[in-house]
Amino acid sequence: MNKKYAIGIDVGGTTTKFGIVDQHGHILFQDRIPSNEHDFIEDFIEALYDKIHPLAEQVGGFDQLVGIGMGAPNGNVYTGTIEYAPNLKWKGIIPMASLMTNRFKLSTRLTNDANAAAMGEMMYGCAKGMKHFITITLGTGVGSGIVIDGKMVVGHDGFAGELGHTIIRPGGRLHKGTGMRGSLEAYASATGVRETAIELLTENPDQDSLLRNYTINELTSETVYHCAMQGDRIANEIFEFTGKVLGESLANFVMFSSPEAIVLFGGLTKAGNLLMIPTRQHMEANLIPIFRNKVKLIFSSLKESDAAILGASALVWDS
Amino acid sequence: MNKKYAIGIDVGGTTTKFGIVDQHGHILFQDRIPSNEHDFIEDFIEALYDKIHPLAEQVGGFDQLVGIGMGAPNGNVYTGTIEYAPNLKWKGIIPMASLMTNRFKLSTRLTNDANAAAMGEMMYGCAKGMKHFITITLGTGVGSGIVIDGKMVVGHDGFAGELGHTIIRPGGRLHKGTGMRGSLEAYASATGVRETAIELLTENPDQDSLLRNYTINELTSETVYHCAMQGDRIANEIFEFTGKVLGESLANFVMFSSPEAIVLFGGLTKAGNLLMIPTRQHMEANLIPIFRNKVKLIFSSLKESDAAILGASALVWDS
Repeated sequence: MNKKYAIGIDVGGTTTKFGIVDQHGHILFQDRIPSNEHDFIEDFIEALYDKIHPLAEQVGGFDQLVGIGMGAPNGNVYTGTIEYAPNLKWKGIIPMASLMTNRFKLSTRLTNDANAAAMGEMMYGCAKGMKHFITITLGTGVGSGIVIDGKMVVGHDGFAGELGHTIIRPGGRLHKGTGMRGSLEAYASATGVRETAIELLTENPDQDSLLRNYTINELTSETVYHCAMQGDRIANEIFEFTGKVLGESLANFVMFSSPEAIVLFGGLTKAGNLLMIPTRQHMEANLIPIFRNKVKLIFSSLKESDAAILGASALVWDS
Repeated sequence: MNKKYAIGIDVGGTTTKFGIVDQHGHILFQDRIPSNEHDFIEDFIEALYDKIHPLAEQVGGFDQLVGIGMGAPNGNVYTGTIEYAPNLKWKGIIPMASLMTNRFKLSTRLTNDANAAAMGEMMYGCAKGMKHFITITLGTGVGSGIVIDGKMVVGHDGFAGELGHTIIRPGGRLHKGTGMRGSLEAYASATGVRETAIELLTENPDQDSLLRNYTINELTSETVYHCAMQGDRIANEIFEFTGKVLGESLANFVMFSSPEAIVLFGGLTKAGNLLMIPTRQHMEANLIPIFRNKVKLIFSSLKESDAAILGASALVWDS
């Protein structure tokens, strides 16, 4: 019997999304559960099983499935463990792949969530056919996946590609999650945009802004976007600054691995040209000549969650 | 007839060194010529030929040689060309590999000089057996070679691994060669150490220092080292600052490719612990926990020129 389907699972900080995927990268059935409502990992896996079982039935049952591919924060492709993920409820080292295999009776491969998204992009998205590219997810945090010579870069210990934590403003803004100062994630994430908004509004108390109509809780990257689209000066400055910091970081990444493209994902990319234009400008301005005007800077054409589900499922075909 | 020898050539900014190398990585005969005394590339190659011919005779003539491996600034492994190397006399795009092949009647492979050194380190030096490491050359400039999964990272266009040009102090010190501000090379090179010395002496006019006994031309990384070893406070601060900037940059590189080791080469490493201690401290301080206390930070055990000659020769066996 020729098994034709894989399960792809994307464990996010808030939501876990999953689907039944065929070999052509079509997600046939999908669903989701909250990531952080189960204190014990076993209960979380049980909840996953309860939801995935009926999906599997629709393609003929678990017998039709080759295996499970899973992306998760701090997921390690070598060990199949999730190690000290700051945004997940289960602390320490979680042997996710073996727990999944035990429950589902299907071989399970785990990787970092950002790497899963990059893999999806390579197999089914706008990086299709590319051998050298970097994906950057601009969401609540900043994730990244690096592909060199057609292979995911995982490093000697499986943890490579934490570009969100690289330092671009030494001594700069405090990242409350890591305690580090000046990391890319402290600026070029939804959280970072909100902090930039609060800083600019506080530092320029006399400057009018539509952003002053919002409560501090309402100051999100979305409200900044809406105000910027209405021509608000501070809101536009916020994206200009975010793009500047992001562009400088991207220049550094380009001078590391000289990729053909950088693919941007995630919530912040909804800002479109407000973010793209300053990012590209500052990336180019910080490159030495041999790298200039070569790197394609593009927004992903896949839905972020689809890319991660597809990329996770690709681990199954790959193994 | 079983050919047993290769020619390894390292084209440096000042001197070009070369040797006859056997398959075990022994340099049997070596010599050197100046890099910048020939206005025309053809004359440079003729001078090389005149020196290499007698060396080849000692192992039985050119017939005994498999080929030529060559490392040069901005050397491109894909095209065999040297492109716009700022420190060499020949401008534009030089088809070095094909010119060499024509003159020597031996197949020639060219790569970036820093990549050649990394290759030498991997085959014959302290990175032997490692699959994931980065070499950083701290000389007049800052060069780098990146190895992932046992392969040199060259990127989609052959120019990857220009870590000396990554920005670590946005808006910071001007790099006179590139016109960029705040690159690693502007700080963690012999030139950078000299600039830091001039800055600290100028900014603290009332602070005594042995460095004030030297003329401005004598203020080199060597004099700073000698003064630091005599306990001079400003001289020690110079290395502390250099190590801080270098350590921050290394942390960023670690979070990119998660190498097993970083191997430091070049003139500045003569400073030993004066440089190593602050570099290691600031690297660790800027890593998120999953990367801490894992990366070996070591000084190369190969002579810099040997590493490059050996690494260049390795291109021949590799092809």
